Amino acid sequence: MKPTGPIPPWFTAEEGMLLIAGCGAAALVDEAGDTPLFAYDMGIVEAQVRRFREAMTDGLHLHYAIKANPFAPLLARMAGQVDGFDIASGGELDMALSAGMAPDRISFAGPGKRDDELEAAIFAGVTINLESEGEGRRALAAADRLGKTPRLAVRVNPDFDLKGSGMRMGGGAKPFGVDADRAAALARAMIDAGADWRGWHIFAGSQNLDPLAIIETQSATIALAARLSDQVGAAPPLVNLGGGFGLAYFPGDTALDIRPIGVALDSEMDSLPDILRDSRMALELGRWLVGEAGVYLTRVLDVKVSQGETFVVVDGGLHHQLAASGNFGTVVRRNYPIAVANRFGAPPAADPVTVVGCLCTPLDRLGDKVALPTVREGDFIAIFLAGAYGASASPAAFLGHPSPRELLLG
Amino acid sequence: MKPTGPIPPWFTAEEGMLLIAGCGAAALVDEAGDTPLFAYDMGIVEAQVRRFREAMTDGLHLHYAIKANPFAPLLARMAGQVDGFDIASGGELDMALSAGMAPDRISFAGPGKRDDELEAAIFAGVTINLESEGEGRRALAAADRLGKTPRLAVRVNPDFDLKGSGMRMGGGAKPFGVDADRAAALARAMIDAGADWRGWHIFAGSQNLDPLAIIETQSATIALAARLSDQVGAAPPLVNLGGGFGLAYFPGDTALDIRPIGVALDSEMDSLPDILRDSRMALELGRWLVGEAGVYLTRVLDVKVSQGETFVVVDGGLHHQLAASGNFGTVVRRNYPIAVANRFGAPPAADPVTVVGCLCTPLDRLGDKVALPTVREGDFIAIFLAGAYGASASPAAFLGHPSPRELLLG
Repeated sequence: MKPTGPIPPWFTAEEGMLLIAGCGAAALVDEAGDTPLFAYDMGIVEAQVRRFREAMTDGLHLHYAIKANPFAPLLARMAGQVDGFDIASGGELDMALSAGMAPDRISFAGPGKRDDELEAAIFAGVTINLESEGEGRRALAAADRLGKTPRLAVRVNPDFDLKGSGMRMGGGAKPFGVDADRAAALARAMIDAGADWRGWHIFAGSQNLDPLAIIETQSATIALAARLSDQVGAAPPLVNLGGGFGLAYFPGDTALDIRPIGVALDSEMDSLPDILRDSRMALELGRWLVGEAGVYLTRVLDVKVSQGETFVVVDGGLHHQLAASGNFGTVVRRNYPIAVANRFGAPPAADPVTVVGCLCTPLDRLGDKVALPTVREGDFIAIFLAGAYGASASPAAFLGHPSPRELLLG
Repeated sequence: MKPTGPIPPWFTAEEGMLLIAGCGAAALVDEAGDTPLFAYDMGIVEAQVRRFREAMTDGLHLHYAIKANPFAPLLARMAGQVDGFDIASGGELDMALSAGMAPDRISFAGPGKRDDELEAAIFAGVTINLESEGEGRRALAAADRLGKTPRLAVRVNPDFDLKGSGMRMGGGAKPFGVDADRAAALARAMIDAGADWRGWHIFAGSQNLDPLAIIETQSATIALAARLSDQVGAAPPLVNLGGGFGLAYFPGDTALDIRPIGVALDSEMDSLPDILRDSRMALELGRWLVGEAGVYLTRVLDVKVSQGETFVVVDGGLHHQLAASGNFGTVVRRNYPIAVANRFGAPPAADPVTVVGCLCTPLDRLGDKVALPTVREGDFIAIFLAGAYGASASPAAFLGHPSPRELLLG
């Protein structure tokens, strides 16, 4: 048997049926028409936003990085929950605007922005986080073509990283932003060229479960923003302090306690360097806000035995939930939290089973030697932590299977 | 500097411009309208088919596993090149039929077939490779509902594997097929239930570069098919011997020489066990047929320096070519063959560069510290080996970027 990650504590059952936003999993599948299905509980997202607001100092802005989950009904609800959207492409710009987010609350980061994306962003009036001097030049040229004043911030590759992150985005040579020692010069050049300078974007890492590492990085980020602003000789309207809040996906992970982060930020905000006194500070979160709210439901097509090992074959797979198969950004495959949705909480059978997707490839493994109650054809398997980097981050067209259904609940 | 895989030898240049099917890369981008672009040279595919026919014994059938590349114009051409299509979903069934392949030359494997897929396959008259006793029961029930005789083969999980394969599909406990010691009983039960028994599907592994390992496995596969057929007491109309022919993707890989495989198979076919004398034998190839024919072309948006390291940022990325980023089925990231398409064959610059995609994630790396000629904004980067498991096997919706364009040439 191999362990599985912890099921988020917000899920309960009624007569053995997993409830999502108060609805039984089987009823949700009926409502959606079929499996596979991503069900998102907006109540869990809103509770997470409340947890953020309660823990964090007043005035700290909360941005949603929509790449985590751009499902349109969810985005429309998120627009009313957070203070801004962070986008990463022209496509996401359209999604953010369609969701009703005001353009002056949208900022656009991403190492490779095409000219047509820069033009669309400038035309819409969103802030572009410049990733290089070359992009600054192209943004000014695009603004010139449009006869508009561009809103430009500078993304900084910080000279430190967020220790213990799932993904390091700073420290060392990076494709993101400009090195800290060139950032002020770029901001100054943009101001001198007549741009509306919006401040700094400093993103040091993501998917971190260590509050002390996050606190240390945020402190260093504020100090860096102050130092750079002094070099520019201008107060930044906004300092995007990055994200980094992680979720407990795997065996041994414990949920991040954000309260000490709030306490530390409160004290930082009380003693900000002069030049940041009037700046807006924001955290940019994606995964942490929506990840736990999603459940991927897939139906058992077959239970078979091969050389003494039991395989549970489902109608979903890595084409919908690539990360859960261990093929996206992980070196060693580990099990996401998993359950039999219609036998939730039942004791495990004597022998573990391996849950595989319907794709004809050995990569398509959703649960490796996991302890589950007895599984039968027609049962529903639930894979948790499916609210972020699931449906939109998987190779949906692979092997010609139908796209997953998605439902927003609550 | 890190090494890159070998560029397939079929590519040449004219005045420094990479030619694909005789057309310059830049002209192809103009024709397609923009980058990123997958360009497939049908001439390379057809030459590969010829190489197969020349090396292999007469009468050996060649099947194309369409999951490798289901681009419709390519499928339509492939239908005239090969003796059958192997499909892995109901969606691929539609694609195969649309491409004009005759139903009795299509077979359907995949560990999780839904009832509606079984019905569609039986209705169309294609062969279903049964993956389990449970699927046999469901196939018979589906046939009963339709009032049709189902064409059923049995997929066998062989009691050996293909040594040194990129992916092992046999040997040990597997979700594919039924264990060899239960295969004859399943075939017998299907025959007794009135099904049209089509034979065996025995697929031991894929992406192999060792002719001796392939020869050994094919010999074992034929012996296993004979033994199982004797147990059934019936001659199989078709024995699908699987695939396994690999391509040289990475530094140190050498191209597979298929000629010794042909010689060995010739001798096997000359001395087939009695019960297989009238059976059709087929190899099922995907990647080997189409992989080298594809080039992914992407435009350089930015060339930037971070802490002394040069990053080339392109408008494509892992959302189109996941495998080249090292995030799909590989443990250690290695560089695919890569070139500057408009400076093909020029000597490398003094320092290596890292080619990253446009996605705002550190996973999006297409070439790590590779030796390229000097790269400038607007240049075209070519990633080779993009003909298989590229466009259809990547998370196209990730971060809201446009889908890649695809062109079939030659």
